[in-house]
Amino acid sequence: MNYPNGKKQSFRTSGKNSQEPAFGNRGMTLEEDINDTNEHYLVMNKAVIHKKPTPVQIVKVDYPKRSAATIKEAYFKQASTTDYNGIYKGKYIDFEAKETKNKTSFPLSNLHDHQVKHMKQVNEHGGISFLIVRFSLLNETFLLPSMKLFSYWESQYNGGRKSIPYSDIKEAGHLIPFKFQAKVDYLDVLDQLYF
Amino acid sequence: MNYPNGKKQSFRTSGKNSQEPAFGNRGMTLEEDINDTNEHYLVMNKAVIHKKPTPVQIVKVDYPKRSAATIKEAYFKQASTTDYNGIYKGKYIDFEAKETKNKTSFPLSNLHDHQVKHMKQVNEHGGISFLIVRFSLLNETFLLPSMKLFSYWESQYNGGRKSIPYSDIKEAGHLIPFKFQAKVDYLDVLDQLYF
Repeated sequence: MNYPNGKKQSFRTSGKNSQEPAFGNRGMTLEEDINDTNEHYLVMNKAVIHKKPTPVQIVKVDYPKRSAATIKEAYFKQASTTDYNGIYKGKYIDFEAKETKNKTSFPLSNLHDHQVKHMKQVNEHGGISFLIVRFSLLNETFLLPSMKLFSYWESQYNGGRKSIPYSDIKEAGHLIPFKFQAKVDYLDVLDQLYF
Repeated sequence: MNYPNGKKQSFRTSGKNSQEPAFGNRGMTLEEDINDTNEHYLVMNKAVIHKKPTPVQIVKVDYPKRSAATIKEAYFKQASTTDYNGIYKGKYIDFEAKETKNKTSFPLSNLHDHQVKHMKQVNEHGGISFLIVRFSLLNETFLLPSMKLFSYWESQYNGGRKSIPYSDIKEAGHLIPFKFQAKVDYLDVLDQLYF
């Protein structure tokens, strides 16, 4: 599958297997909503939070004489941290955002060990880390503080389930309000939880 | 110029003109030193600071049946923020790092408006932002708090000079000590300035 030249596309590295189809509309929609929200926060001078670029391993670059350098061969790399970070009310903010079409649970295969370890480090150093989960078919988006995520993450290695039930996320997480100008208004939830 | 397949290379987008040779040893050396330093900070549980991936505009991707997705056409994009950010002692940290072969001044063309604006936003929200400048031929690396950078940045648009004299950086900046395990030990300077 090739994308037409010049079309602006967002790509995300996938789960554990780079061959998984991770570039679907689902992911892009939440990502775009969050990017819009961050842009709105920035314009309103509310917070400075950006998505990190997709990590790419560049192998071959052409430098034509009269035009811009062209990358001719590169591969998606696994991210060593989460996708989003920045500052809000003087606090370091760090999160990952994932969508699922699953209606009953959030599969933990959407995350990597690296990312969860990174969230723990952030917490240890006084930052705020969390997960944004969208159940796209239910049209609901939740903020799950990373502390709540960790126990599920660990238990999957001790015979526990490999997903977090929807009902648990509804219970332990916080529904993120949809607003016209802040489509995923996660700072609203952070205000209730931490500020 | 092509890089041989499989060779691990770091690429950086260049100054205002993407055709400038910005991939020389200079840039890579400071970048590698800082990456090593950040890794050391992480292992020592001192700070969580990472380099953001190089922003790339992906145009064409092949998805071969039995192997990883291959990016066949992509371009370097201008970064909208600085290259490094993270958390130290509960504070949001944000900086850009640049090397110059110039012995007498640091050319402001090494930075973009976006990056300087981003540093201002970081300061407004209670973070700490700065520039790391290495004079590679002098083998000296300085930390320049962004507040000191701003006046030079502005004055270049009002007929002022387009570079910061080395002597000013020596005066307004802080020499970053070289240590074996923290080759660019910028947290040492931050400790003196802010903690």
